[in-house]
Parts: sequence; C-alpha cells; structure tokens
Amino acid sequence: MKELKLVDWIRKRAGKPGKKVETGIGDDCAVLGYDKGHYLLWATDMLVEDTHFKLKKASYKKIGHKAVAVNISDIAAMGGVPKYITVTIGIPSKMKERAVGKIYDGIFEICKKYGVKVVGGDTNKSSKLLIDVSIMGIVARKNLLKRNGARKGDLILITGPVRDGRKRHLDFEPRVKEAQFLADHYRVSSMIDVSDGIALDVSRISSESRVGCRLYESAVPLARGLSLKDALYYGESFELLFTMPVKEARKLFLSARKRKEKSPYFVIGEITSKNEGLILIGKEGNETPLKKEGFRHL
Amino acid sequence: MKELKLVDWIRKRAGKPGKKVETGIGDDCAVLGYDKGHYLLWATDMLVEDTHFKLKKASYKKIGHKAVAVNISDIAAMGGVPKYITVTIGIPSKMKERAVGKIYDGIFEICKKYGVKVVGGDTNKSSKLLIDVSIMGIVARKNLLKRNGARKGDLILITGPVRDGRKRHLDFEPRVKEAQFLADHYRVSSMIDVSDGIALDVSRISSESRVGCRLYESAVPLARGLSLKDALYYGESFELLFTMPVKEARKLFLSARKRKEKSPYFVIGEITSKNEGLILIGKEGNETPLKKEGFRHL
Repeated sequence: MKELKLVDWIRKRAGKPGKKVETGIGDDCAVLGYDKGHYLLWATDMLVEDTHFKLKKASYKKIGHKAVAVNISDIAAMGGVPKYITVTIGIPSKMKERAVGKIYDGIFEICKKYGVKVVGGDTNKSSKLLIDVSIMGIVARKNLLKRNGARKGDLILITGPVRDGRKRHLDFEPRVKEAQFLADHYRVSSMIDVSDGIALDVSRISSESRVGCRLYESAVPLARGLSLKDALYYGESFELLFTMPVKEARKLFLSARKRKEKSPYFVIGEITSKNEGLILIGKEGNETPLKKEGFRHL
Repeated sequence: MKELKLVDWIRKRAGKPGKKVETGIGDDCAVLGYDKGHYLLWATDMLVEDTHFKLKKASYKKIGHKAVAVNISDIAAMGGVPKYITVTIGIPSKMKERAVGKIYDGIFEICKKYGVKVVGGDTNKSSKLLIDVSIMGIVARKNLLKRNGARKGDLILITGPVRDGRKRHLDFEPRVKEAQFLADHYRVSSMIDVSDGIALDVSRISSESRVGCRLYESAVPLARGLSLKDALYYGESFELLFTMPVKEARKLFLSARKRKEKSPYFVIGEITSKNEGLILIGKEGNETPLKKEGFRHL
C-alpha cells in the first residue's frame, strides 16, 4: 500500500475526531483545544535506519538533531511554538554506549536551541536504529496555519532556495522564526513544510483546500547543484511552503525592501479553482499536469 | 547500557523540565499543566517485532490491540482518562495490505471501547514491524496518582492475580475503570502499572518515593500456571500496583464486603523507611534483598 493511500484509509477509519479536536489526521500536526486563546499542537515523526539514513554515512549526533528537527518543523508549519518532546528509541544490541550518548547529544543540543524540554519516552531493543519523537507545541488561535485555507487567486510562496535533501538532510534548521514572523504579521492562508518534495506538498495543500494550482518551474529557487526534478519530486528540504492573497504578498515584499533586506521568500505559483486542476508550467510556458509524486518513506 | 541506567542518564541530561511540567521523565506519563482543575497526561510506548512479539505467533489484530492497550494502561496508572492517540507504524515491505488492515482493526476496536480518538501518526517502511503509539489523557488534579507518594506504613496492593505475560500478553485489558474508582474514592499514595514484573515496579515506587518496602511472596496472587518467579521478575501483566494508608485499605475492603463483592485487590506488602531497604519475605519467613530485576526490553 502506498503511504498516501494508507493515510487516507486510516483517516476514513478514524472518523470525525470530536468537537474538541480542531484538526485530526491530514495536517502537519493534530490540533486540540487548549485554552481560550490557544490550541495545543501534537505531531510525531519517526526516523528509521536504512529508510531515512544510513548509519555508515551519518554522524550519530546529526541523527539525533534531525529526529527532533523534523518534529519542530511540523510545529513551525502550523505557526506554533515547540514546547515538549518524548523520545522513543530502538537500539540495536551491537550499538555502543558512546554512540547512544552522541545521539542524545544531538537531541539535547537542538532542544536547548529551540527551548524544547524532553519530558518522557521509551527505550527498546531493535534490529535497526530507530528514533520516534512525539512533539507538543502551542499556537495562538489567531496564528494557526493549516493546509486547508488556500483560496483561488492566492500566491504560492516558499521560504528560501530548496536545498539538496540527499546531501544536507541531516543538519537542516526548522523554520520556526520564519513561520512565526509570517503568522504574526500577515494573513497566511495555508502552510506546510516541504518534507516530500514541492510537487507532493503543493498537491496536499490543493487537496485539503479543494483548489487547483499553477506551479512555475522557472520560479522554483534552487540551491547550488540541485536539479529542478529533485526539488519537485525529492523531499526533505524542510522549507515552508505557504499561500497568501496577492495583497499580503505585496506587503511582505515591500516591508523587506523597506528594511533593505533581501527577501527570503519566493513566489513559485498561484492557486486556481479546483476544476482547473494541478498544472506545472515549464520553462517554455508549456503546461503539464503536476504529478502528485514525491519522496515517500513507504 | 541497561534500560534503567540509560533512562536515569537521559533524565539527568534532560534537567528540570520547567514549572509548567508537574512530572517529566520517571513516571508512567509526563504530567503537564492543563487548566485549573486538570492535568494533561502524555505517554509513549513502542512495540517492536521480535522484541515484544513474534509475528508468527501473534495475530495482527492482537498486536494492534496491545500497542494501544499498553499506552492506555500508562494513563490508567496515573488515574487519568485516555483521550487521543497518534499511531506511528513501520511496515516491512513484504507485509500484505490485509495484514496492515488487521493491525488497524485491532487499534480502532480498542480505541472505540475506551473512547479514544486517533488524531495523527506517521507511516514508514521498516525491516521489522513496529508500532509506536503516543497517548494523551486528562486527569483531575486531585486524582493524579504518581509513583512518588508512598509513605512509611502504607500497604502495597495489586489489582487482580498476576497473569502469565508470556501467554496472554497480547490481549490484556488496561485497568482504567479500577484506577479511576480508586482515585475517585480513596487516598491512594502511589500507583504504577506492572509492565516489567512486580519486583522491578515495586522498586520503582520505592525509589521515586524514597522509601523501603517489604514484599510477601506468599501474598502475591497468581493466575493458574504462573510461577512466583515469573510474577516477580517477568513483566507484562499490566495489573496496577499501588500503595495506600492502612486506614484507606480497610475502607476499600469493607466497602467491597458491603456490596457482597469479592475484592479484586490484594495486599502484597508494606512500605518501610528508606534505610530498611527493599526486602522480599519468603514463604518460610526468610528475608532476602529484593532484586531490582525484571523483564526489560533492552
């Protein structure tokens, strides 16, 4: 079963999650009622040896860093502040104490940087190394950024050039500050973190928002050495992909110019109506259907 | 590194979790501030193929059931009501769709029974089947049952005879009702669920409460066919182990007699002062130090 099909199936089986749940399966985080002004955000993301990384190629500390970073990125993508994590680890019996220590070095280092506390977890024996982090965060109700708010006419933007996930996937920094800046100052209609390639993640926003889109190949900002194909269909850049009305995007770019900063935001497309479908505009202006394909870990 | 040593080390590294955290690492759940009258409970427990079960011997549905049940049991052991789970699954590529479906059948069936909603998760490829459930629950502040409240003179009790974890470990029912009944009506000083054998879990209560204990071998209620050694040192019975003042225990047993019920609670020992240590009283009255050993999944 493909991951998308499986997730859809689980979501259908799970049913409506009840009125205290603002969002269940189908976004970066589950969104639960907290207090009058805030929601609780809750996400979980697992790294598995040989699926997400090779032990021989990776430093243990970076694996610990990434296991937390992908989860912080999920909180960021909803406009939230990461607060607490639990760390569940499966340790191969041949792994040395020192290696386990280094993994936790990476975990505690990034936690300190982002003000996140480790409050629990589970330790197990396992044939392959695996780390499953569950994260909790808080978001002001007015700042909540979901996948389902994109509207026809909105622009599609991305934070920063897409990097090569294959080379740099272990040491990325989650875009917490950027997401909070956007949520605090602008009307952002939807947001997602690019974990499976731009094409798949744009298609997720379109599907949740019940809209279509036009994505401009030539507008996708690429880090040096990265091919467009990899940016579109290979994942793991963890930049934020978001949509906002044209007016808001104008304000965003003007304010950056006023501060004489180079804007870290790039327009890569626009939202259309659902019946226009998902279209990729090539460098010569040719239109092809956007393939809902990406790097899936299943 | 042994699990206990690793957990202690992580706990030391994690440091104090901040004033909004009532309990961090070292109990069945992390306990976070929620509202004036309630705490949020948060736990995570993972099942790994060949560590916790053999695929050939287990039914897929029962594996799904157990993955959720062990987590519900963690919420029960704090006196709480289970509310939401996320399910992270690692699926071997050779596993059939039907098998994955059956695992989720087990997950959704027990969720329905206990009023728990699936609100998120993660799906991955993995060489061995693994299921990591993260659970959230709610507990009234006055009902919170921790591991650290046992006092000298308290009795140590257990719910129901200890079953054979090796045979029946997949289809146990978490003791949610029993824990809530106790928390609602009696002054329970500490509680834990027996996941690693009575000896180890009694020693956890003693260590967190900074007390000693005397455990009576002859008082441990055993399900048919289970040896005392297995009850003490093999885990996975998921009965609740708790302590309460003698007065409260008397009330508990009297009220059961009034209702003409057979009490489902058994006194198995008593709490002493820390310098008396952890003592096991044999069937002939012989005293030996209680070994802090149990079934650990590492």
